[in-house]
Amino acid sequence: MKLNIALLAGDGIGPEVVDQAVKVVNAVAAKFNHEVNWTSALTGAVAIDAVGEPYPDETHEVCMAADAVLFGAIGHPRFDNDPKATVRPEQGLLKMRKKLGLYANVRPTFTFPSLIDNSPLKRERIEGTDLIILRELTGGIYFGERGRKDDGNTAFDTCTYTREEIQRLAKLGFELAMTRGKKLCCVDKANVLESSRLWRETVQDMEKDFPEVEVTYEFVDAVAMRLVQWPKSYDVIITENLFGDILTDEASVISGSMGLMPSASVGIHTSLYEPIHGSYPQAAGKDIANPLATVLSAAMMFEDAFGLKEEAELIRSVVNKSLTEGIVTEDLAGKDNKAYKTSEVGDWLAKNI
Amino acid sequence: MKLNIALLAGDGIGPEVVDQAVKVVNAVAAKFNHEVNWTSALTGAVAIDAVGEPYPDETHEVCMAADAVLFGAIGHPRFDNDPKATVRPEQGLLKMRKKLGLYANVRPTFTFPSLIDNSPLKRERIEGTDLIILRELTGGIYFGERGRKDDGNTAFDTCTYTREEIQRLAKLGFELAMTRGKKLCCVDKANVLESSRLWRETVQDMEKDFPEVEVTYEFVDAVAMRLVQWPKSYDVIITENLFGDILTDEASVISGSMGLMPSASVGIHTSLYEPIHGSYPQAAGKDIANPLATVLSAAMMFEDAFGLKEEAELIRSVVNKSLTEGIVTEDLAGKDNKAYKTSEVGDWLAKNI
Ligand SMILES: CC(C)[C@H](C(=O)O)[C@@H](O)C(=O)O
Ligand SMILES: CC(C)[C@H](C(=O)O)[C@@H](O)C(=O)O
Repeated sequence: MKLNIALLAGDGIGPEVVDQAVKVVNAVAAKFNHEVNWTSALTGAVAIDAVGEPYPDETHEVCMAADAVLFGAIGHPRFDNDPKATVRPEQGLLKMRKKLGLYANVRPTFTFPSLIDNSPLKRERIEGTDLIILRELTGGIYFGERGRKDDGNTAFDTCTYTREEIQRLAKLGFELAMTRGKKLCCVDKANVLESSRLWRETVQDMEKDFPEVEVTYEFVDAVAMRLVQWPKSYDVIITENLFGDILTDEASVISGSMGLMPSASVGIHTSLYEPIHGSYPQAAGKDIANPLATVLSAAMMFEDAFGLKEEAELIRSVVNKSLTEGIVTEDLAGKDNKAYKTSEVGDWLAKNI
Repeated sequence: MKLNIALLAGDGIGPEVVDQAVKVVNAVAAKFNHEVNWTSALTGAVAIDAVGEPYPDETHEVCMAADAVLFGAIGHPRFDNDPKATVRPEQGLLKMRKKLGLYANVRPTFTFPSLIDNSPLKRERIEGTDLIILRELTGGIYFGERGRKDDGNTAFDTCTYTREEIQRLAKLGFELAMTRGKKLCCVDKANVLESSRLWRETVQDMEKDFPEVEVTYEFVDAVAMRLVQWPKSYDVIITENLFGDILTDEASVISGSMGLMPSASVGIHTSLYEPIHGSYPQAAGKDIANPLATVLSAAMMFEDAFGLKEEAELIRSVVNKSLTEGIVTEDLAGKDNKAYKTSEVGDWLAKNI
């Protein structure tokens, strides 16, 4: 098979972790006789520096032409504490999501048997956790009107949702639930927000089309609690953009291994695969970042974008082997064991494919 | 001293838990020679049923006339899954907060030595946690314009903040930090939201007035992670209304004892004390709910509203004694021990004051 992949390394540790995924993907492709065609493009702070724009048109064309996008991370602290910066790396991310129609972010949360004791949560609470959060990604307060009034002394943001936006995300949620535990939890703040009431109303109307799915409705504050108390009680969670941002990051704590959690963003024009961690600028260039989240994102890409399940499983099994054999970066090594470099882990994985 | 307290029991388990706090407050008052004047008033679903309004004018007058308000809980499931309900208990809560000018919700998070193993988090992560979240309570998306368009197919909510709203909340945060660990964390989503950029800008401008306070700025998604990973790294957190709603509930998991966590809401006209748990309708009327959060809220009331620290400490020490002697409701009893009724716990506490 011919695999055309757009490669967006981005900022901070993005390039280093993406490099390892490339090694692994190439090794898998060689083994299964696929031809991989990589096209790199700029995004984030590096794109701002190079062309003044965090998601240049050229990059968009590269993504549109590809079968899938592999993404590193973007963001740089020099923009974070400058409330007056006019161009920001994050704008590139949002523009990319919007222009590529990536309306659903898919975040699995699961535990790695060999790493379960790294979690801040107790083993008995998390062992066997297997939930997926589907976060709406191209609507809500991220994309509504915003601005200042009163000489800059009043600021506002608008959260808007249409029934169609909710339906297409919820449909994915119902379908996903049907392939799994048949439980769907819709998370909102319907006791306060009108947009949440539209979410609840829309999902309630869809229940009849999926009679086998057991649907529950929970408030976001309650879920922020229950997610760490009883993560095993969830199967598929659907929610709007901002709640999803908060809850997916919170959920990433469960596994105890942020550096290992992959994600996919799917939608209209293409699909994009990325680690859930950020650009981690403090570690950039040091060859110490954990590349496994990006490598596992590549596994998701094989399975979901290309329908190549065997390839995906091979990547996952080699990753598991690296964990049990202790070929891990410093975040997982513990103080008594050897820590491998980012690039060494990538090399080891590629060799063991 | 003469203590005029408005008593708003509310819905669900509200009346039962409030009853126990009343017993304890009366016992403390008797011991220290204070005169307590209780005035009860309706709020929540019970007020809707009685007078068609969740926060009637009469109730407001009672609160305005009192030195402090002791509040139970409000909310009833019959409103939650009806996106078309026009009167909701929660509206009463929001109206009350707004009309009483309760712009700051104060939520301490700490652990109880005797209960630390109840937490889903590992002991070493949480032992010694001592943080306070200050949540802005009368602004943001809770109070902005909202509605429907396109025949009800589009819904919107608006988040608005003014510099003054941010300043008065942040000022409390800086002052509180000065009495404690001198660390302040401002939580926002300044990489996306204009209102968050105003928060960050405003707090940055105030830093010079509190040179001893070490201020950090973190994104809400990152805090949703770090709060369960490293709760001990926080001292005082300030944040806007919706983020505060989510993060305070998440933080309540740390102690492992939701049923024990008190809160205060302070502001312009009076101050209000309430357990952080909800109305828990499944348990209503069963005399099984844990009254300690409400009792500890009454302790906060003695200390903060009346400046009676000794009385507050006595309540806290009797609560601790009840915990170590196992005079606890079923949520804390564990399967091998006797569970006491809500009213029995209240009686025991009052007797031991
Ligand atoms: C960088 C930021 C704009 C982004 C978001 O909030 O969506 C990030 O937190 C994420 O979750 O991908
Ligand atoms: C009941 C609800 C409106 C309320 C809120 O969101 O403020 C509650 O969750 C709280 O935190 O007091």
